[in-house]
Amino acid sequence: MENSSKPQSRRDFIRNSSLAALGAGGAAMLASSPMLATPPLQTPQLHVFGPRPGYTPIMSHLVSMMDWMRDTIILSVRKLNVEQLDYLLDDQANTIGAMLYHLAATERFYQLHTLEGRDWGDWPTADAEEFSTASGLGDKARAEIKGNPIEFYLDKLASVREQSLQMLKDRDDEWLMAVDEDWYWGPTNNYCKWFHVVEHESNHNGQVKLIRGRMPK
Amino acid sequence: MENSSKPQSRRDFIRNSSLAALGAGGAAMLASSPMLATPPLQTPQLHVFGPRPGYTPIMSHLVSMMDWMRDTIILSVRKLNVEQLDYLLDDQANTIGAMLYHLAATERFYQLHTLEGRDWGDWPTADAEEFSTASGLGDKARAEIKGNPIEFYLDKLASVREQSLQMLKDRDDEWLMAVDEDWYWGPTNNYCKWFHVVEHESNHNGQVKLIRGRMPK
Repeated sequence: MENSSKPQSRRDFIRNSSLAALGAGGAAMLASSPMLATPPLQTPQLHVFGPRPGYTPIMSHLVSMMDWMRDTIILSVRKLNVEQLDYLLDDQANTIGAMLYHLAATERFYQLHTLEGRDWGDWPTADAEEFSTASGLGDKARAEIKGNPIEFYLDKLASVREQSLQMLKDRDDEWLMAVDEDWYWGPTNNYCKWFHVVEHESNHNGQVKLIRGRMPK
Repeated sequence: MENSSKPQSRRDFIRNSSLAALGAGGAAMLASSPMLATPPLQTPQLHVFGPRPGYTPIMSHLVSMMDWMRDTIILSVRKLNVEQLDYLLDDQANTIGAMLYHLAATERFYQLHTLEGRDWGDWPTADAEEFSTASGLGDKARAEIKGNPIEFYLDKLASVREQSLQMLKDRDDEWLMAVDEDWYWGPTNNYCKWFHVVEHESNHNGQVKLIRGRMPK
């Protein structure tokens, strides 16, 4: 397994890739599709968490983390081909493609829940159709999510992220700190919920790296 | 693989475990050893990110994330026995035990680097001896890190965390935002470095869950 805690790892990876010319925001630029008109990162200072144009002070920190984490996972998957994205470690595993779709689904559902005030599971039909299989993973995802190139998954991620970033501009730090007393695991504020959305990408990135190292050459 | 994005997962896990009586801070209490006098969580409001006693406002958010993430990974590993902690998925894999030790090593090295001003790799002899193998993982870790009960790893994590939490009390938000212009992957502030320490736990927790689901019954 990779030891991604070594600061050298990321640098060497960036240095060895064509992203070097694009600078730190390169991966996010790759994720943006002209069709989606996804904006590039809010700032070229990817690793300097702080104010982001259009966001309140603490929201800016959340957006900093969202950008940073997204850049990290895109660096991890952007060169995978269809066969690699569909690779199953074993018959209980999830493909990397399905996990990427799952991350887009997770973010979309948290968006609908926290930003549109919907109860968990009460999704508009179109969203349920687009994201429920990826959200649930397992057998259905293994059967249905396959054959897509990396652009398919990056577009899903970028499209949902574009909505999040737009909607979070209309909220402030008071909203971020607002507590949901009835959340499943106990009283939880929006900052915690969105931190979970971010760290969830790292959780699956760990699995992506483990699986990536075990694919047939 | 587990779908840990579903909010039900965490609640059900807590509900089904003896931690329920302890509340949300239960896992952190388990991690504390009387010998180490590790304090329990700063607040019982684990999922409400916000002010933490003794910390400046933004530092409190970092501490909130550190507490939350640590609670999550402890829930994931606390019941594993020695055989499970030493289980190797294949000959290139890392054991869960080694990964937990690795997380303590990562945090200790970031502590020495950001809080004691040491260049990366310039570690005191005692720290190099205690943490370098775990930091590097790979063959040496597979050979040397084994045979320890979960308490061994939780104590390593708790001991390093206790130092971090103590040292971060003496720093403020200005320190958190201070930029290291010479960092390996580009200009980076302490907030970004410490966010990486936190999300790195999630990265390995994803691998822990993948491996846990593949152990012999």
